[in-house]
This record gives sequence, structure tokens and C-alpha cells, in this order.
Amino acid sequence: MEAAPFTVELPIRFSHTDPAGIVYFPNYFDFCNGVIEDWYTRGLGIDYARMIFEERRSAPIVHAECDFYAPSLMGDRVSFTLLLAKIGRTSIDMEIYGHVAGTLRLKANIVTVFMDLDTRKAVALPDAMRQKFEAYRKACEGWNPPPKPGA
Amino acid sequence: MEAAPFTVELPIRFSHTDPAGIVYFPNYFDFCNGVIEDWYTRGLGIDYARMIFEERRSAPIVHAECDFYAPSLMGDRVSFTLLLAKIGRTSIDMEIYGHVAGTLRLKANIVTVFMDLDTRKAVALPDAMRQKFEAYRKACEGWNPPPKPGA
Amino acid sequence: MEAAPFTVELPIRFSHTDPAGIVYFPNYFDFCNGVIEDWYTRGLGIDYARMIFEERRSAPIVHAECDFYAPSLMGDRVSFTLLLAKIGRTSIDMEIYGHVAGTLRLKANIVTVFMDLDTRKAVALPDAMRQKFEAYRKACEGWNPPPKPGA
Amino acid sequence: MEAAPFTVELPIRFSHTDPAGIVYFPNYFDFCNGVIEDWYTRGLGIDYARMIFEERRSAPIVHAECDFYAPSLMGDRVSFTLLLAKIGRTSIDMEIYGHVAGTLRLKANIVTVFMDLDTRKAVALPDAMRQKFEAYRKACEGWNPPPKPGA
Repeated sequence: MEAAPFTVELPIRFSHTDPAGIVYFPNYFDFCNGVIEDWYTRGLGIDYARMIFEERRSAPIVHAECDFYAPSLMGDRVSFTLLLAKIGRTSIDMEIYGHVAGTLRLKANIVTVFMDLDTRKAVALPDAMRQKFEAYRKACEGWNPPPKPGA
Repeated sequence: MEAAPFTVELPIRFSHTDPAGIVYFPNYFDFCNGVIEDWYTRGLGIDYARMIFEERRSAPIVHAECDFYAPSLMGDRVSFTLLLAKIGRTSIDMEIYGHVAGTLRLKANIVTVFMDLDTRKAVALPDAMRQKFEAYRKACEGWNPPPKPGA
Repeated sequence: MEAAPFTVELPIRFSHTDPAGIVYFPNYFDFCNGVIEDWYTRGLGIDYARMIFEERRSAPIVHAECDFYAPSLMGDRVSFTLLLAKIGRTSIDMEIYGHVAGTLRLKANIVTVFMDLDTRKAVALPDAMRQKFEAYRKACEGWNPPPKPGA
Repeated sequence: MEAAPFTVELPIRFSHTDPAGIVYFPNYFDFCNGVIEDWYTRGLGIDYARMIFEERRSAPIVHAECDFYAPSLMGDRVSFTLLLAKIGRTSIDMEIYGHVAGTLRLKANIVTVFMDLDTRKAVALPDAMRQKFEAYRKACEGWNPPPKPGA
């Protein structure tokens, strides 16, 4: 398992950018989804694909939010750092900070609810998973997000 | 110009849905962007493409947020209704309601800032545009969003 | 059912275009997939979503090909016309012509194989479906694609 | 510069797959575009972003084609290997092989034409670039693509 807080660096590609030359904003939500996926697998040791297809449990997003402080351009490499803001009974609340060279580009907030894929109802976090989430949150204590541009 | 509030009905396609069979959430933000584009062109009579490529002004998103109340499936047709919540000096704040058969599926909030594409600085809304926004907001008064599922 | 050959007009959006201001080419393959979906449902009267989720049959692409003759820009409206080039035992071979104002923009060729979603094996076209395909091909006879630019 | 032939391993994510649980085929064309981008930058030492935005030269796709031999699932890691099949006066013709564990999943063929972004006309390959392409092709000689499944 990788060091906390979990950080992934993603390259900004031609295909992510729009006619104004900057990342098209829905792509940031797609990046966040990829970061969450990697965090489960490499940060927590939970096989996300197995959880969905074998345990028939998914974690649909019920709230997604992002503030964009500075645009990103093709060729940039943005680091995404994931914090766990809240661990609920059936849901978790994540903060994802996108930053380059020690300056914040964006801050996202994503809330997922654990759901039984067959009944389509919310289910309580399994204990083993809850313990991993709690250990992760503890391991991230003391990390401070980079400042916004111009701050 | 079309009747206020501006509403677009979009089909949910195979390509919008994920292995759990429901719309992959970043696609909703892409839908919202398309709704805003159509609203400029058909709802306000402002040529969005011309604004970007000829007037060199864009309207990047500085905040995007969405609550998801119920999933959408392939074959659904979701209506998106756009309200103008706030008209600022350089920005506008939009609410987009996604609904099917009189029930809310999602509510998005999108804030865009008007920017000069060459200087990459925020610019005040041109008067002609501000007047259209104000007329639109007035024309939407009295519209109430559909209730959430189970409400 | 709509007149043959089946044609869908799609708007080119900001989100479809790239930093060079033209449609990012993988989006054309996504458009083609949407055109095929609409053709099943509205052109042939076959409910594509029902076929996948209830009859557990899908039609994965085994070959996809496209020639691009002229770029498309934001604000363009491209018409896509679908012809059925070949009806095999387990597969169909489609040609999709993208055109604007009587001039060809692109020509795609897409081959799908019918597959049982549970066994993941190719299956023969059901007779009812084959008859619809044959009637459609017959109804398209005599249609000629628009010329390429400069032709 | 990396060893020839240039190979990139890409993870298959939740977002790349469709309701049938396999990669949605236009995503493969997007992957190919990313592989080409990385090949320019890391395989040839040509800064792709700089070429587009500073030298105002782009390389639009005029032909794209792919045969799909076996589906890929979430969690797979697909290696993409790029060969240069032909170097023309204004264009190059690339073959991209997608493989996992020594078995072919797909073979793509992509042709790009070099274009002046301001005149939108094809331009001859600059000599320095042509030399890099020729050296690359030579360095790949002797590499054989993995066999198709069941071969």
C-alpha cells in the first residue's frame, strides 16, 4: 500500500482540452473517479473491480462538486491528492485536491453511497472496509493542501 | 426564442451508461454544458460558437456541483430545465434541473465567469448580454422544479 | 418507422471539438454508435435497450473504420446516413456517411457481431431481425452518398 | 528516449467500460491518440504540445481503423505498441497493437497528415522530423506482433 495521503499524477492530454486550450471541466470529474478507483486498489488494497463484479456492490456518486482555481493545459501533469473528510454509516465523503508545483488548481468533493447492485438499496459499510477507511483518515492527519494561486 | 424556462430533452444512450447500467456521473456535467450551449443559442439568441471564436470571449466554469437523486438508464429521456439563480458583474450562476415524468433526477449548479480569451482575465458582462439574462430570469419567475423521488 | 435510408442530424458541440477547433476523431465513432442505436429503435422498430438488458444479446463492434474528408466545427449540424452493406450469418456490416449541405465529411464502416451476453459467443441473427435488415437494405436501394469535398 | 518499439501500458478503468462490462470501442481510438502523443514526446523527443501551440502545426487523422479480437475488462492493463508502417511526403501511417500477456486484443491503423493550423493545408514533413521517423522505423525492425487469441 502506498503512503498517505494517496496521490496520483495524471498527464493532461490533447483530448482533455477544449477549443479554448484548457481542460474541459467534466474531464476533471472523470479524473476524480479514476483517482478514487486507484485509491481503493493501490491505497487501501481493496479490489474495486472485484467489489463491483463479484461482490455486486457499487458506490454510486450522490454528490459531486468542484471549485476550479486555475486552468490546466495540455502537457501539464496534475497531482491529485485524496482525503477522507467523513465516514458515514453507508457513505463516504472525499476531498480531492488537484495541484501542480505546490499550487492548487482545483478542489473537488465527492460523496458516494454503498449500494447493493441487485436490490439497488444503500447498505452499511462492511466492518473491514470501515476499518481501512478509518486507518486511512488517521494516516492523512497533518497533511495540508497547497495554497490557491496568488494566495 | 423558445419559451422560458428553457428545457432540453436528451436521450440516455448506451455510451452514457456504466457497467452498473446507470449514467456515468461526469456525463451529467457534459449534458449540462450542452444545455447551457443550447440555451445561449436557442433560448437567448446568442451565438455561442461566434462568441468564442469571433468575439474571443469564453465562459469557463469556476464552480460545478450536482446532487443525484435517482439514476437514469439507457433509453430514458431526461428533460433539463435551466434557471438563472444569480447575475453577477462578471459571472452567472445557473441551476439545472434534470427530471423525468415530473420527478427530479438531479440538480446541478454551474457558475461561469466571462473571460477574455486573449488576456485570460475576467471581464464585465456586456450590457446587451446582461439585459438578455435579466429578461430570462424574469420570464422564469413562477416556475417550480419537480419534486424529488419519494417526496 | 422512419423513411430509408435512416438519417440523423447531430449538432457539433463545444465538447466535441479539440484545441485545433475541430471534432476530436474518436467522437465520430461515438456518434456512429448513437446513430446505430437510433436506427435500431426508430428505423427498424427494435428496442436496443430491451435487446441488451432483457434478451441479453449485444452487438459488439469487431471492426470500425473511418475516412475523414473534411473537418467539422462547433455549431455545424452533421447528417449521418446509415446503409447496410452486408448481412452475414452472425454479423452485419454498416456504412455510415456523415454529410453537411450535400458534401461528404466522413465515411465510416462498422461491423458488429451478435453475441449472447451470458456465453459471450456469437449467435446467428434471429429470423425476425434478419427480415428487418433485409427489408431495410432493399428500401435503401438507389440512394447515393453525397460527393466528397472538391469532387 | 525509450526503447523501440514504443510501448505504453494503460489501465482499463470503470469509466472505459460499457453496460456489457467491456471497453466501449471509441475509447480505444482515444487510447491510440494518447499513445501517439506519448510516442512523440517520450519516444521521439518531439514536444507534441509545443508543436501544436507554438509551431502551429497539427496532425489531424484522415483515416482510423481498428480490428477488435478480444474484449478488455475493467482492471486489465493493455500494452499498446506503435509501429510506423509508412512515411509519406505529408503523412505517416501508424499501426498500433493492443496486447495483454502476449496475446493480441486489437490492431489499429491510424493515418495522420501534417497540417499548417493557420492555412489548414497539408505541409511536407520537416526534415528533422522525417529523420526521426526513419530512425524509429529502423529501430523497430524485427519486432513481431503477438498472435491473435486462439492462434
